Amino acid sequence: MSGKLYGLGLGPGDPELITLKAHRILTSAPVIAYPAPDTGPSFARQIAAPYLRADQLEVPMIVPMRVERFPAQEIYDSAAITLSHHLDAGSDVAVLCEGDPFFYGSFMYLFERLAHRYPTEVVPGVSSMMAAAAAYGRPLAARNDVLSVLPGPMDDADLSLRIESASAVAIIKLGRHFARIRTLIAAMGLTEHAGYVERVSLANQKLMPLADVSEDVAPYFSMILIYKGAEGWAHTQAKPPERPL
Amino acid sequence: MSGKLYGLGLGPGDPELITLKAHRILTSAPVIAYPAPDTGPSFARQIAAPYLRADQLEVPMIVPMRVERFPAQEIYDSAAITLSHHLDAGSDVAVLCEGDPFFYGSFMYLFERLAHRYPTEVVPGVSSMMAAAAAYGRPLAARNDVLSVLPGPMDDADLSLRIESASAVAIIKLGRHFARIRTLIAAMGLTEHAGYVERVSLANQKLMPLADVSEDVAPYFSMILIYKGAEGWAHTQAKPPERPL
Repeated sequence: MSGKLYGLGLGPGDPELITLKAHRILTSAPVIAYPAPDTGPSFARQIAAPYLRADQLEVPMIVPMRVERFPAQEIYDSAAITLSHHLDAGSDVAVLCEGDPFFYGSFMYLFERLAHRYPTEVVPGVSSMMAAAAAYGRPLAARNDVLSVLPGPMDDADLSLRIESASAVAIIKLGRHFARIRTLIAAMGLTEHAGYVERVSLANQKLMPLADVSEDVAPYFSMILIYKGAEGWAHTQAKPPERPL
Repeated sequence: MSGKLYGLGLGPGDPELITLKAHRILTSAPVIAYPAPDTGPSFARQIAAPYLRADQLEVPMIVPMRVERFPAQEIYDSAAITLSHHLDAGSDVAVLCEGDPFFYGSFMYLFERLAHRYPTEVVPGVSSMMAAAAAYGRPLAARNDVLSVLPGPMDDADLSLRIESASAVAIIKLGRHFARIRTLIAAMGLTEHAGYVERVSLANQKLMPLADVSEDVAPYFSMILIYKGAEGWAHTQAKPPERPL
């Protein structure tokens, strides 16, 4: 009997935003694998850290994290071979995923290599996009809104067309594109409808109107939300709530 | 001291997909409010039912649930007055929300009436859209995909333009629009890229290629997912996984 492979969505960062199901699997799987950057700690492991036990085997998978380039496929080939050894030996393997595993997540690369060979389950998680809207205190989308999720590397012409035609927009993967996108949103007259959210749900979370962001580069875990409905992201609430949420 | 208002995202239906945070608040708030349809049980309450205690005060808010029409604002005016009595009396009030409170959720109507008057926190939840992709075993969106969330009541011209221009699409609020939208997707040659998901994560969940759906009307809790990436929703996997997930 081979082990079972889990893709565990861990939510946006606050360990309390893990689901009961992810928590159960996280605390019972003998092997815990997670992507780790080439330098620094693994964010996925940090989310799970309060629940990990010393008797669980940890398997870091070194995956360079870049806004723009996608990791070489060899990295996932190699990680899949490592995980298959544990699965073949009968151990369940939980792969930790920030946010939701199938919402722009890297778990798909392991899934496509292993899901046809082993029992596999993807456990959905709270997306940082939903968490950002909740923290900011504005709806992400409502009624018959069209919501578009747009990656920052898109060019200006394409971005502006899609921002123009949607009622609600989330722009992800900002990185070095941030200043260009902020300029584009200003040229479209939408700055007052735009909110900026960084490291949502973590202790160092930042929430502010886009107009108030002074930096020109945004970290990996950041996004811009635009809401053009009657309530606008800055219409009734120029600043995020000041009381602690 | 007034009580605190919580909008609690409860996830797509499986009570185990509640977050630890929602679980903590759900089991400690003295007042539990939830939308209930004019006939039949409240879906939000059903998700929370395993955790509710007899000593919690339950406040059902009767809200007709329709794919198309939005409930009269008087319903929320009245519900807000009811909840404000409990908040004024110092009781925390948890409003149960299916999925995520700010992703096409009705909690916004209470939020806009009460959040400026009482301490308020929105707890994000797992969206049925993420859960549907997880259950089906295909990514919702990846790499630099554009993801568009489209409400079913949109007209054919607008829908087809937006389906055409996105890499990944979720069509929600299908209802009586289902047959029309299925015909549209077929005319666009995208049926083989489309999956249908109904009541995701519940015991009576349905997952199937869009081509296999025989009904002409879809229930409220259903959606069509289209993934046009190389992996297509039906390219490597004409049917959803047969092993129990």
